[in-house]
This record gives sequence, structure tokens and C-alpha cells, in this order.
Amino acid sequence: MSQRVLKVGILGAGRIGRVHAETLAFRLPGVKLLAISDVNTQAARQVAERCGIPIVADSSAQLLAQPDMDAVLICSPTDTHASLIEQAANSGKHIFCEKPIAFNLEQIDRALDAVHNAGVKLQIGFNRRFDANFARVRQAVTTGEIGDPMRLHIVSRDPAPPPLSYIRVSGGIFMDMTIHDFDMARYLIGDEVEEIYVSGAVMVDPEIKTVGDLDTAVILLRFRNGVIGSIDNSRRAPYGYDQRVEILGSAGKIETSNRYPTNAVISSATSVYKDLPFNFFMDRYAESYIEEMRSFVDAVRENRPTLVSGVDGRMPAVMALAARRSHDERRPVRLEEIDSAMSLAEALKHR
Amino acid sequence: MSQRVLKVGILGAGRIGRVHAETLAFRLPGVKLLAISDVNTQAARQVAERCGIPIVADSSAQLLAQPDMDAVLICSPTDTHASLIEQAANSGKHIFCEKPIAFNLEQIDRALDAVHNAGVKLQIGFNRRFDANFARVRQAVTTGEIGDPMRLHIVSRDPAPPPLSYIRVSGGIFMDMTIHDFDMARYLIGDEVEEIYVSGAVMVDPEIKTVGDLDTAVILLRFRNGVIGSIDNSRRAPYGYDQRVEILGSAGKIETSNRYPTNAVISSATSVYKDLPFNFFMDRYAESYIEEMRSFVDAVRENRPTLVSGVDGRMPAVMALAARRSHDERRPVRLEEIDSAMSLAEALKHR
Amino acid sequence: MSQRVLKVGILGAGRIGRVHAETLAFRLPGVKLLAISDVNTQAARQVAERCGIPIVADSSAQLLAQPDMDAVLICSPTDTHASLIEQAANSGKHIFCEKPIAFNLEQIDRALDAVHNAGVKLQIGFNRRFDANFARVRQAVTTGEIGDPMRLHIVSRDPAPPPLSYIRVSGGIFMDMTIHDFDMARYLIGDEVEEIYVSGAVMVDPEIKTVGDLDTAVILLRFRNGVIGSIDNSRRAPYGYDQRVEILGSAGKIETSNRYPTNAVISSATSVYKDLPFNFFMDRYAESYIEEMRSFVDAVRENRPTLVSGVDGRMPAVMALAARRSHDERRPVRLEEIDSAMSLAEALKHR
Amino acid sequence: MSQRVLKVGILGAGRIGRVHAETLAFRLPGVKLLAISDVNTQAARQVAERCGIPIVADSSAQLLAQPDMDAVLICSPTDTHASLIEQAANSGKHIFCEKPIAFNLEQIDRALDAVHNAGVKLQIGFNRRFDANFARVRQAVTTGEIGDPMRLHIVSRDPAPPPLSYIRVSGGIFMDMTIHDFDMARYLIGDEVEEIYVSGAVMVDPEIKTVGDLDTAVILLRFRNGVIGSIDNSRRAPYGYDQRVEILGSAGKIETSNRYPTNAVISSATSVYKDLPFNFFMDRYAESYIEEMRSFVDAVRENRPTLVSGVDGRMPAVMALAARRSHDERRPVRLEEIDSAMSLAEALKHR
Repeated sequence: MSQRVLKVGILGAGRIGRVHAETLAFRLPGVKLLAISDVNTQAARQVAERCGIPIVADSSAQLLAQPDMDAVLICSPTDTHASLIEQAANSGKHIFCEKPIAFNLEQIDRALDAVHNAGVKLQIGFNRRFDANFARVRQAVTTGEIGDPMRLHIVSRDPAPPPLSYIRVSGGIFMDMTIHDFDMARYLIGDEVEEIYVSGAVMVDPEIKTVGDLDTAVILLRFRNGVIGSIDNSRRAPYGYDQRVEILGSAGKIETSNRYPTNAVISSATSVYKDLPFNFFMDRYAESYIEEMRSFVDAVRENRPTLVSGVDGRMPAVMALAARRSHDERRPVRLEEIDSAMSLAEALKHR
Repeated sequence: MSQRVLKVGILGAGRIGRVHAETLAFRLPGVKLLAISDVNTQAARQVAERCGIPIVADSSAQLLAQPDMDAVLICSPTDTHASLIEQAANSGKHIFCEKPIAFNLEQIDRALDAVHNAGVKLQIGFNRRFDANFARVRQAVTTGEIGDPMRLHIVSRDPAPPPLSYIRVSGGIFMDMTIHDFDMARYLIGDEVEEIYVSGAVMVDPEIKTVGDLDTAVILLRFRNGVIGSIDNSRRAPYGYDQRVEILGSAGKIETSNRYPTNAVISSATSVYKDLPFNFFMDRYAESYIEEMRSFVDAVRENRPTLVSGVDGRMPAVMALAARRSHDERRPVRLEEIDSAMSLAEALKHR
Repeated sequence: MSQRVLKVGILGAGRIGRVHAETLAFRLPGVKLLAISDVNTQAARQVAERCGIPIVADSSAQLLAQPDMDAVLICSPTDTHASLIEQAANSGKHIFCEKPIAFNLEQIDRALDAVHNAGVKLQIGFNRRFDANFARVRQAVTTGEIGDPMRLHIVSRDPAPPPLSYIRVSGGIFMDMTIHDFDMARYLIGDEVEEIYVSGAVMVDPEIKTVGDLDTAVILLRFRNGVIGSIDNSRRAPYGYDQRVEILGSAGKIETSNRYPTNAVISSATSVYKDLPFNFFMDRYAESYIEEMRSFVDAVRENRPTLVSGVDGRMPAVMALAARRSHDERRPVRLEEIDSAMSLAEALKHR
Repeated sequence: MSQRVLKVGILGAGRIGRVHAETLAFRLPGVKLLAISDVNTQAARQVAERCGIPIVADSSAQLLAQPDMDAVLICSPTDTHASLIEQAANSGKHIFCEKPIAFNLEQIDRALDAVHNAGVKLQIGFNRRFDANFARVRQAVTTGEIGDPMRLHIVSRDPAPPPLSYIRVSGGIFMDMTIHDFDMARYLIGDEVEEIYVSGAVMVDPEIKTVGDLDTAVILLRFRNGVIGSIDNSRRAPYGYDQRVEILGSAGKIETSNRYPTNAVISSATSVYKDLPFNFFMDRYAESYIEEMRSFVDAVRENRPTLVSGVDGRMPAVMALAARRSHDERRPVRLEEIDSAMSLAEALKHR
């Protein structure tokens, strides 16, 4: 089966849709892009032309109606994700969907139920898991290289805040930005968080306060296995995109640092310096986008579970909701407060 | 006046007493060690012999009675600090006292009152302020090199926990270990903390739980100026003494790393490695002990305020008490809850 | 013209031929691979199948006879390069040729004459120029960031020697390995070398001596502008592929270090370590192979000079011959001793 | 015997004399400074006062005549070293002498003969051997950590050239500056050099040419055991004092980097930078001066051979002479060409 060409459609021709289209067109053998659609037809046409996609569908329904399509990528705005997952699942397509699935658990659970009932595969776009640095950290945990993890510290800072218009519909910093770090925390430690405490503030841009959001936060996590996690978020790091991880274990620690375009170091008469790290997440994580596509394509073709499941998409949303409540009520919040409708144990059946 | 020889007595001939004695004897010109005392007379004699101290006093009272003594160092166990400060102040001696002053505010305030009334100088032994790395971080804050501070992160991990017998009388991790980090946080940010939240655990050695203490903690700080601080404490770092600081400001960040005996890097057939960082605090901070003595001696001789005042000794104790309460009650605790007897404003008169 | 599809043929389906085929097939839009040939027909067929190349030619002559082919890549063994350049030039194809052009200047000059007379473009496969690290070093020189260069030091060590069978036909270490460093030296300094002195030895494997070659050498270069260069070559670096550069200028220095799969650092109870740097030149320089292809394709399509000219292919061969003579005669050798048939000035007309 | 106080005199109260005086006065227990002398009596008096030295002698003869003096330090100008060694040896004093012993072998050999005949100890001031970084490199060689050494590379660059007046009497760059690197090369590899080749130039300051000296040089060394060494010297490194070493062995490599006042790294909006490394050799090597004194004092008190012998002082002078000849004659020079009067084998008897 691994020899068969995988036929793929893409819903959404925005920035991330283009990235995945190019990966599937130019980087991964054995994939054929069948169709693309976007409410912005012009954008869809441009990607189609550049990547040699034969069909530009008028709607997602039309795209999903393609009979010989194996899988779809959902790269449209967040508020369409859950509904498109349902539609795609009902059409029997395997699904790659960008994060987050939705801003509320009801929608998420309805989407996951549809996936479950249809028996199709679902992979969520937590691309950072496919970054070589973080994969190396995970390896140090699973092999016992640093012993039993005790402390996890994630630094995740954007170079600059997005436009206010975006922040307004983003779901808030925890749902939009920290959600990657929540996924990373679960992935690296390999266990679930049971309690969250947040100390947040608006320090970068007072306008962000006017739309009810934060731009700076430290998020403490208590994992069920006792590990204490901390996430350091800021919407502005003047020096670029700051993405680091450290785990202290009973036998040692592992740390990763930022990635730089080059490793050149210049010693001048005033300082010893290097150029700034990557500033744009698509540069910093360029290879991870390719690897997550490769992983999705392989999972479908080889009929293996995807490496980022529906539950992996759902739990960070639960965490984001708990984080927001902790901030609002200035107290530690247990995840089971948020997730009453569906216990963690039940959630596991969706894996 | 800077030419006059400063005559100094030392109360306590234990590890830190010896260090200071050697510094004053061999490293700082213009100081004369007059006398030393210790309940362990043998220890006092050995230091006296090595450092050329003419008098081994039978008691602290006898030592303080030396008429021509300008200053004393209090290097005895913590439970004697407050009372010795009072006695030394009443004897008109300038005082250098190891941290902490005491485990409760009543004792601390009585000692500070005595110092205040006697008009003598008091310097508390927060030696890390005199470390070149941390001084460089402070410089980046005061000069505006990184803009306005927004986030402070301190990593402070011991190589291994002290003996249980010590932990039992240590005052607990916050009073014994974090107290240095509380001081560092105040020093680096240059402002007071108003609220503390702790997420702590026993992960290193279950025995530590039996004496009611913790060995692992993340401590969140809210400063009055809005800065969010975090302190990462562990009683065990298998790779050595882990002492790092990072501040994110509006214009950049500054980070310090651990110090190593050498900077040699070996590339073998299996890895690229260097030797472990300093393991022992007296090696890691060797120069800071000399610089704090130099600073104390200069402050006395030149009649300037000491760089680590009585209030600088008191505030970290308040913070330690708040941290413990936060841990016990699993909620953020404001410092004014702890410090009802003496408001922060009043405390400032002791500076 | 940049919109026109460039039609390319590949002579040689070995390791480097495959790399270029995949780059042109999957990474660079606007290129069509027309045909491939190799004396190993099976190898040619495999590459053709993987990369979607329609024609597997029986011979280089048949390949070059394709009427609508714009350019060819010469990826066959070195002893065929010069003759294939001549044939390709005579067929009016633009040429990308792997290094070195040939082991002797007569062959090289005949090939360059053919290129010159045919008016086709020629780019030599010195891929390292397209590496981001080395490009950054060159930038520091051209912008004056480090002032006037005074010293250049290149470390270039292979992980392990190639098989003796290869060494026997390699042209020797200077023609096979150092030739890349000779090119790098000329590229980084932007001037020609006038004298070379070599201190070489067999230290890695005594067998290498039996075939008349070296495995370890320090090569000193005197540039016409006075810069002193040194190249540190070894056929074995147990820790991987060691590729570094340092330039000291009148205003500062710039250094590059090796590249690593990840930047994770692990602190254990015995050392602070990271994984080894890239071991294989195709991993270390993966991106440079793509960039050199992009550069060649762009030069042809936009009718611009290639960035690595025929003279850039010829000069390192002159340097390799001088290096060998210096080693044999244990004295500094001027390049004009080697290059009597064709002066440096004349060589410039081939640029 | 280790309890006996060692009584020491100092010849020369210049910069290095002061450093050693302070080390012996304030850092090393069990040493008594008896007397000091300098043609600049005022300088001698100042050091005497600061360090508590009771006698300021009118002349070296008077100083050496002190009956109860065990050892002398020769810290006077180079042209007096050899003669003072002879006088001190004839007076039965153990001798610490700054490098170089003299600029010509006749003087050196006469001095060493005097030492030999008197049976006193002699240590030469190659302080860098006592630097922790270089000691770690030596350890990697002696323990086999990097296998058999194959290549040694030393970078040794001054921040700025000394005044022309100094250069004029310095003995030239090889005798004045490279001599430290010649010693380091012998020390690290643990074997003798048999051939030297130099590529040198005046690049930093044309005035240096007018006094017949160089300011930039690469010196190639061939050791008897086959190791190829290279030394990279410059009289000006705009970024500070550049002192690094790298050894490639059959099992790995070891590298050291420069030392910095702090390890703080600042990430700004334009670059990631740190402050410059130490600029002044006395800061960079501060601890090594203390360690060499400790080593000398211990050798005398415990009647052990000194760690830097007379031959260790002589060989670098031979190397400096060979380097100069290689530069002048533009050819590799064997050390036996220089050292005809006294073969290497004979030299060993002076160890």
C-alpha cells in the first residue's frame, strides 16, 4: 500500500495552506494534490498554479465531494475547523487539521465523535513535535537519559504581537499561543496535567487589555505524575522568536536553545556578537512542517495511528480554558473543573 | 580615614567564618583580625593560627568586650544571629551578619531596632550580589540596556540536599535556600514583591517530607512594578550547582549561565562534552565572598551605607514566610498578610 | 525569460547526480529533467523513476543530442569531466560540472577554451560557497565588518578516510579534499594566492602512504594582498565532519563552528554534552546543494554569469599542484611556477 | 620541612615584580618576603610598603648578600636575567626567573651551567602552564582522552602592539611573544620540535617594520613524534586578548576558548552579544601567576624539581632563533641548525 499514490485535497489557501501545499507538491514523493478551495478564490488559484493542483473547488462541499480523494488538510480559519472535520469525516476522508480544533469543548467533542464514528484518521497540526530539538528532548525523557523528569520549563515568546484585529478573534493568548506549549508539555512529559495556575499581565501593549486579552504570562502546570511545569509566554521578544525547553530529571537535565540562520560569531572592538535567531515561526519551524506532513502521509498510507491524535488536539483546549479561569479567579484550577462533561478517562477512547 | 587599619572580630569559626577570616587576613590590605571565638574552641584556635589572629575569645561576650574593635562578623548558627546583632550593636560594633537574620520577624525587628538605635552599620551576607555575573545583570537593568524588565527567571539548584539533621533546623527550603533567590530577585529588579505563589513538592528525597520540608519548588513573584518573577529551586541537580538568571525586558533579554573550572570542550567519537560546572557554592561564588568583605570594609572605613542593609535581610524572610503559607494553603499570598506588625513603608526607615 | 521552463539533462547517476536530480525534481520550480545517463544503466533508471525523468539515454553522446535541452549537469567520475565539458559546450549546452575539472592544467584549459568558444555558461560544483555560514563570513569581509582581512584559518577534516581504492584515483588529498578549501580561501578573501607551503604527513592510516598520498596537512597560503591563510586538513576527525573558518581582520574577527542536528545540551552526573555534529558531508551541506542548483538555474535563465566560473574551477587545481610540489620539495612554491603555460592574467579572460 | 617559612627576595619592582610580591605576601602562607631591590628605588619602596617587605636593598648584590634568604625572584629586564641567575646561583639561592633567560644561547648556557653547578633550583616564568584551561588540555593528552595527538593549533594574539620603544629591545616577536607559545607547544605535546617554518608579515603597524620586527606570523612546528603544530600570532586583536588552543588526536579533539569577566549574554533588537574577553594578560592569567608561585614555593620547600626547568627556558629561545631564521631565509629550519654548540641530547642533562 505504501506504493499507492495518496490523493489529497486542501481546504484553505492561506499562509499555512500554501506551506503544506508546497510540501506535498515538491517535497514528498507519492502524493498527488487533487484539489484546493478557499473563500478567496484568487488565493486558491495562485496556490493551484504554483503547485500544479488541477482542481480549484468552489466550496469545501465541492472539494469533499471529489470521489477519489483520500485525505484533506483543513487549513481554514479556526471557527470552521470543527464543522469541516465533521463534514470530512462524514465523507470518509482522513483529516489533517490545524490547531486548535475549536474554542469550546462541545464543538471539539462533536468533531471527535464524528471522526471516531467514521473510522478515519485525524492528525492535529502541532508541528513543533516534529522539530528535531524537541524530539531530542522527548528522546531524553523516554530513554531515561535524564532519569525521571521533575521540572519542565518552556520559554515561548513571539517576536511581536499580532494585529489587534487578529487577537480579537484568536480565542485569547492561551487558546492561540500557549496551546502549542500545552501540547509540547504533554508531549515531552508524556502525562496529563491536572492543575494550572497562571500569573498573567498586559505589559507589551495596553491595547491588548482593551480586548480582554493578556500578552505576558507564566503558567504553572502540575502533572499527574508530579512533574511541575512552567511556561513563560510573551507576545514580544525584541530579539526574535524565542523557543526553548528545559527538563530537569533525577539524573540530569536537557536544554535546547534558539535556532539561528548561521552560527557565525563576530568579535569586534566593542562586543562579541552573533546575528539574531530566526524571527518568523515558519523559518524557525520550517522542517517541522515538512516532517508533520510526512508523518501524516505515512500514517494514512501505512494505516498507522497518527502521532498527534484528536485527544492531543482536545487536551490543550481544556488546558487553555483552565488557564483562563485561573487568571480570572487568581487561583489554581484543576482540569476536571473544566472537563466535567467528559472525563479524562473517557477522552482516551478517542485516541 | 581610609588609611586607618580596621580591627575586626569574628564570631564563629565554622566554614563561612574561616572563609571570611582568610579573606580579611590574606586578601584585603588595611584590615587587622583581632579576635575570634567559637563554642568549638578547637576550631577557633585553628583559624586563629592559620590567619594570625592573636586572641581566641572564650565567649562572644568576651570578644565583643575588646575595646579597640571596630567591627564584628557574625558567622555563628542562625539561631544566634539576632541576639548577637543586638549585643554587637549595643557594644557599638559595626556588623556583618550571615543570612538569615532570624526565622521570625519579631526577632529580626528587635535586632534591626538595636542596630538603628546604636547607629552602627549592618551588612547581611547575601554574597551573590557581589558575583560578577549577577552584577552584570543588575547593570543591564539599571542602564536600560534591556529596557523595562518584564520577566525575571532565576534557576537555583543545589547539587544535593544537605543532611536531614541540617534540614530539620534550617527553617525550611524557603528560609534556607530560596532566601538567596528572594534577595537576588529584589536586587536585580530593584523593587519589592507584593504577592507570592508556590508550587512545591518532595521529589528528591522522601525523607525530607518527614521533617515537613520541600525539596523542589517553583515560586512565582509579583513585583509592585508589575514584573513577574519565577524561581526554580531544587535540592538536587546531578550535574552540579545550577545558578542562572534571565531577565526579559522591553528592549531585550540578558541571561547568565553556570560557571566552569575551565572552558575546555572535548569532541570524542560519541559526544561533544565539557567537564561539570562548579559543584560547591564556595567554589562557584569564591570571588563574591571576597568582594562582599571588601564592600563591608570599605563601607565602614568610608562611612558609607552598606550595600546589603538590614531591610535587605528582613524582606527575604518575609518572602520566605509568605512562600511557606502559599504552599500550605495552595493560594497566592500577599506579603502584607505576613507583615502586619510592620508595614513595608515603616520597614524602609531601617534602610 | 524567467518564466520559461529550463530543460536539463544529467550525466552521471551516482551519489551526487541523485542529489542534484532530486533538487531539480522536487525543490526548484520551473525546471524539467529531460534525460539522464550513466554507464550503470540500472542506477540511471532508478533515479529516472524516482524523479520522473522521461529519458534514460544510452550514452552521454545520446543525452547531449537531445535537441531541446538547455543545460547539463556533469556528475560523472573526474576523469571524464574535461572531455564532457568539451562535448557539452560543443553541443551548445550550459554546463554545471562537479569539481575538479581535471587533474592537469592542459585538460582544464582545453575544456575552458571550449566553453569560452561556445559562449555557454559553466558553473563548477563548489557547493560550500552556498552554505549560509560561509556566506556570512564572506559578507563580513565584503562589508568591512571585520576591517581588512589579515589572517584566514580553515579547518576541514573528514570523519574518516575514503577507501584506498578511491584514494588511489582521487588525484591526492590536495586535488580531492583541499581543493574545496582552496576554493573557499579564494572566495572568502576575494583575492588570489601567490605562494603555498605545506607541512604534511601520514598519521591516520599508513596504507595511504603506500599509494603516495597524505592524510594530514597544514597548508599555508600567501595571498597577493598580503593575507596569510592556513588550512588544517585531516582525513579523520573521530567526532564527525569538522568544517570551520576564522578570519582575523583589522577591526575584528569572525568565526563559524560546526553544524549539529540539534542544539540540545544534556548535563549528566559526569559531563555536560551534546550529540556529535553532522558526520556526512551531504547532511552538513544539504542546503548548499540546493542553493548551488538554484544559483545555476537562475544564472542560465536570467543570462547572468555563474557564481563559480571556469577560472574558479581552474585556480584550485593550480593550488593543488603547487601544494603537492611544496610537500615533495619541502619548500614554499609560487603558483607561477605551476602555471607557466597560462598566466594568471590570461586566466582572467575565462571568467 | 613544609612547615618552615620560606624567605624570599625580589629583584625588580616593576609590573610583574609587584604581582609576585603581592602573591607571596597575601596569598601564600608560609612565605616571608625579606627584601626587594630595583634600580628605581622609589618603585621598590612602594612595593615594600604595600607588601610589608622589611628591606629595600640598594643593589642586586646587596640583596643577594642577605644570609638567610632561601630564594630570589628575578623580575628585572631581560638583559639582566642571565647574569643575575649566575650571581644568584653562586650565592646558593633558589631562583625563579621571568622569561626569556636571554636572547642568545651562550648567555643562557652559561646561566644554566651556573645553576647546575650550584645545585640550586631554577623555575622559568612560563605562567601559562599553570592556567586551568591549558592544564586541562595537557591532561587530555597525558590521559589519552583524545588519543595520540596529531595536530596542535595555538592562537595567541595580543590586544595591541607594545610601544615601539619596547619592541626595539624586545628581542623580536618570536623571542618576546611567541616564546610563550613555544613553551606551550612543548608543554602540551610533551615532546621536542625539530623543524620550524614561518610565514610572517607586518600588517598591524608599518612602524614595526622599521625596527626589523614582525607583527603577524604563522609558525609551523614539526615535532619529533610527528605532530604538526601551528601558532597563530598577531600583535593586535581588536576584541581583546586572544588565547586559545586546539589539539586533534586520534580519538578526538580538545579546544579551549577565551576567558570572559562574566558569561552574561544580551539579546537585543539587533544582535545577541556578550562583553569582550579579558583584554589584559594579567587579568586573563591572574590565577596562573598565583599557581606558578605556589608551585615554585612548594618545589623549593619540598625539594622537588621545579615544573618549568632551565631546559624549558632554553628550548623556546632555540625555537625563537630558528623561527627568525626561517622568516629571513623563507625556508623550513631545523632546530639543530641553531643549536650546534649544544645538542638536544646534551641539553637534557640540565633538566
